[in-house]
Amino acid sequence: MSEDEVEIPEDHPRYQSLLTRHRIEEGVEKGITSKQGLIAEGRGEAFDYLLGEETTPSADEAERVAAAHLLLADHPVLSVNGNVAALVPGELVELAEVVDADLEVNLFNRTEERLQKIAEHLREHGAEDVKGLKADARIPGLSHERAKVDADGIYDADVVLVPLEDGDRAEALAEMGKTEIVIDLNPLSRSPQTAAVPIIDNIIRAIPNITEHARDLQDEPRAELERIVAEFDAEETLEAAERQIREGVAEREREQERKRES
Amino acid sequence: MSEDEVEIPEDHPRYQSLLTRHRIEEGVEKGITSKQGLIAEGRGEAFDYLLGEETTPSADEAERVAAAHLLLADHPVLSVNGNVAALVPGELVELAEVVDADLEVNLFNRTEERLQKIAEHLREHGAEDVKGLKADARIPGLSHERAKVDADGIYDADVVLVPLEDGDRAEALAEMGKTEIVIDLNPLSRSPQTAAVPIIDNIIRAIPNITEHARDLQDEPRAELERIVAEFDAEETLEAAERQIREGVAEREREQERKRES
Repeated sequence: MSEDEVEIPEDHPRYQSLLTRHRIEEGVEKGITSKQGLIAEGRGEAFDYLLGEETTPSADEAERVAAAHLLLADHPVLSVNGNVAALVPGELVELAEVVDADLEVNLFNRTEERLQKIAEHLREHGAEDVKGLKADARIPGLSHERAKVDADGIYDADVVLVPLEDGDRAEALAEMGKTEIVIDLNPLSRSPQTAAVPIIDNIIRAIPNITEHARDLQDEPRAELERIVAEFDAEETLEAAERQIREGVAEREREQERKRES
Repeated sequence: MSEDEVEIPEDHPRYQSLLTRHRIEEGVEKGITSKQGLIAEGRGEAFDYLLGEETTPSADEAERVAAAHLLLADHPVLSVNGNVAALVPGELVELAEVVDADLEVNLFNRTEERLQKIAEHLREHGAEDVKGLKADARIPGLSHERAKVDADGIYDADVVLVPLEDGDRAEALAEMGKTEIVIDLNPLSRSPQTAAVPIIDNIIRAIPNITEHARDLQDEPRAELERIVAEFDAEETLEAAERQIREGVAEREREQERKRES
């Protein structure tokens, strides 16, 4: 956490929302959050509001399964775009250390300048090796710029964590046979529908929680991690999140009705 | 519509979404759309997606009632913030002409520079008189900067159209006894809950539709307009939109399930 964030006390009722806003604004100032990134952040906020702005039991379970996958992997890679770098830079570096994963920058609107700025931002938060700058391999089935990855990074990975990924790339990565963990607040969008492990949660809560689960699980035997992974039902997780949104709308309706009546 | 928009054919399936994106980006380039405005646009997109991205019959009815209110008013004022100016500048100028209303710029994060840029943008789209620059009156109950309005504008208005207004200002305006028409895509947020006429629709569809209704209604006798206004039930409109979102989630769930099964 950077020095100027110390001002927000962790028990502040709007802590998470203030922290998110602070980091996104810092991301814009540093040139790592794009216009499209700000709009995407707003879409996420709306779904998080409907989900109740907390990690649901079903999302927590998916985060535990994600931790097991990352610990089992031969070569796990955490993919980082502009919003992810702005929102959870230090948290990602910590997760990468705990599960021994690579970090790879991977942008929808790829420019050399933003790549460098994001890599620099990650290094400022403790990253030692940041991949994604060589771009010496291609994901099959995607147009030139969108397909670029590092040969010794995402291209070689068996498990990839892609938070806030777009649908086309998520599908193309899954078709390469990689085990894909997607974090997205909209359970209805294409990327979580494609994932082996869809996590319907805010990344600002999800990443530290995956790290905590990884710490809990790191001394477990492989057979136990394999059991956790095998028992997971992705469709059930998506359905739970969809139900949560419908119920969230109904609950907030009842709150508003009570206010209108009083 | 500015010249460079002519490129998008109106029958393009993503016409509305492309037009919105184009105008928002132009707004950022011109310095009239703020970072907070981009995030708010994203929140709106998420609710519009759940509402099915079209004007519902209930929203259309509210837009007709809004037109009747504006035609009946002694002094109607259309309030304009950064996103509104970016998204529907020409459409607002047209509505103001048809119902003989004033346009007043009214910002959440008020700076002289943005005020001037927004007024200029409206003038480029045909506005002759833009209020909000004198700021010689105050809305009671709001902090200094947020309270600023023109004495011969919003302060004097009997009917105000406030698209995308924040909750505090919406409440303070309603407490001044003004008839408030609010456009917002989230039926659960405080501003539409406060409004005499809540319109749960995308402003890019809502403003031209209010104008069309105003043209249809402008030769009706006052008694007929008063009947339309009196028959309107704001709570019913909010409930219809809330229901629409719940059903929208359920419908999109069914679509996704079919895709997963196939």
